[in-house]
Amino acid sequence: MTYCIGLKLDAGLVLLSDTRTNAGLDNIARFRKMFTWSVPGERVMALLTAGNLSITQGVVSRLNKAIAIAEEATPDGTGSPEVPETILNAETLFRCAQIVGQTMREMQDSHRREIVEQGADADASVLLAGQRADGRHRLYLIYAAGNFIEATADTPFFQLGEHKYGKPILDRIITPKTPIETALKAAMVSMDSTLRSNLSVGMPLDLLVIREGLLEFAINRRIAASDPEFQAISRTWSDALHHAFESLPDVTMEG
Amino acid sequence: MTYCIGLKLDAGLVLLSDTRTNAGLDNIARFRKMFTWSVPGERVMALLTAGNLSITQGVVSRLNKAIAIAEEATPDGTGSPEVPETILNAETLFRCAQIVGQTMREMQDSHRREIVEQGADADASVLLAGQRADGRHRLYLIYAAGNFIEATADTPFFQLGEHKYGKPILDRIITPKTPIETALKAAMVSMDSTLRSNLSVGMPLDLLVIREGLLEFAINRRIAASDPEFQAISRTWSDALHHAFESLPDVTMEG
Repeated sequence: MTYCIGLKLDAGLVLLSDTRTNAGLDNIARFRKMFTWSVPGERVMALLTAGNLSITQGVVSRLNKAIAIAEEATPDGTGSPEVPETILNAETLFRCAQIVGQTMREMQDSHRREIVEQGADADASVLLAGQRADGRHRLYLIYAAGNFIEATADTPFFQLGEHKYGKPILDRIITPKTPIETALKAAMVSMDSTLRSNLSVGMPLDLLVIREGLLEFAINRRIAASDPEFQAISRTWSDALHHAFESLPDVTMEG
Repeated sequence: MTYCIGLKLDAGLVLLSDTRTNAGLDNIARFRKMFTWSVPGERVMALLTAGNLSITQGVVSRLNKAIAIAEEATPDGTGSPEVPETILNAETLFRCAQIVGQTMREMQDSHRREIVEQGADADASVLLAGQRADGRHRLYLIYAAGNFIEATADTPFFQLGEHKYGKPILDRIITPKTPIETALKAAMVSMDSTLRSNLSVGMPLDLLVIREGLLEFAINRRIAASDPEFQAISRTWSDALHHAFESLPDVTMEG
């Protein structure tokens, strides 16, 4: 399985993903599930993936292939009628979500029937997050059918994969007003709870922070199991939870 | 859906269940999922149910029907060859688990094919918890196929239904040595987290506490949404979690 978090705050976007994949319990591997693109000053973008790995890798490959074709067609960066539309030259983030959705649909059309016939699951979903110059930062959840929804003030976060263990802390902490630094900690606590309770989610992690209006990645890095900051969060949270638990009033429940 | 918790501690058993059932999101009802039997001084027993309601109600009805037949057959309480074996006269808790498993299998044999043909899900599972005179207290998880597993020191709790939201706190708190009072609070926190994050789990709750060796229910009651002790736990936990969260070290994640 997988656990990916996308938080859309007024202050920007926080994205966190694990790297464990499994085909059955005895076939565990490590794959990056977060993919980033940036044209500094013009746009920053990230895709977080979950579900059938051949499908999501295919989606990313097709997106990159289109970008490569567009770049070859316009070595000077100017557009021409022959340049394919890609997530790097599309006019809006909304249009990028449509392109990713369309690419997902092509992958499903090409492979779904055969995958399902083999008894496997072709489902996949992705988060698309980013911002372009003159646009607002956006977070989309794109389904296997290619349709998508956007995070709003009412629902400022999306999760992919094993979302239940880590949802309560996000429900309690995340609002659009949450500062990036707080959201970063909430994402790490949410991931830590999931790592502890579900073997199919595993270290290392990939973390991305996009600050509103900055048009470059504020943070874009891998977090290893030995990372001192992640370990400090994990240990402090464990201790603090025990303290919080000890602070609960005694109950008799004899009422 | 459903959320049921069964904790097997050295000091006894703590059992907590919600009461919400749904056939689709727009057809929500309230049904008791905890059923108790006691012969004070001889045995106490409880069943917690999840899954297809017609199946689990059928299991409970058949168990009660057998008990009624056994009682009629032996008004003086002495056994005879014609008295059916029931969960109230079976020699061991293990044997009781076999009887419940067998009853589950009969219900599945009678109805599963037709239920599945209608596109519905016939799966069901139950927790059986209890103690008899001269025996240890036991907790079993019985599956739709009638097979079962028993809680041990390594895995001192079972959950049914929407188990993921509330698992992290149980993972952190519950060991066989956990006192009943602490386990009671952990169960309520686990349920509270689930109630907050999943609409398919709902108040009121049913709570049962069996203290090791007592052979009567220490607590057997319904907890309403307005229950002051449950509200105090829920509110204090929410506040304490926020404090715990605020106590986390700042991270830069620039490493």
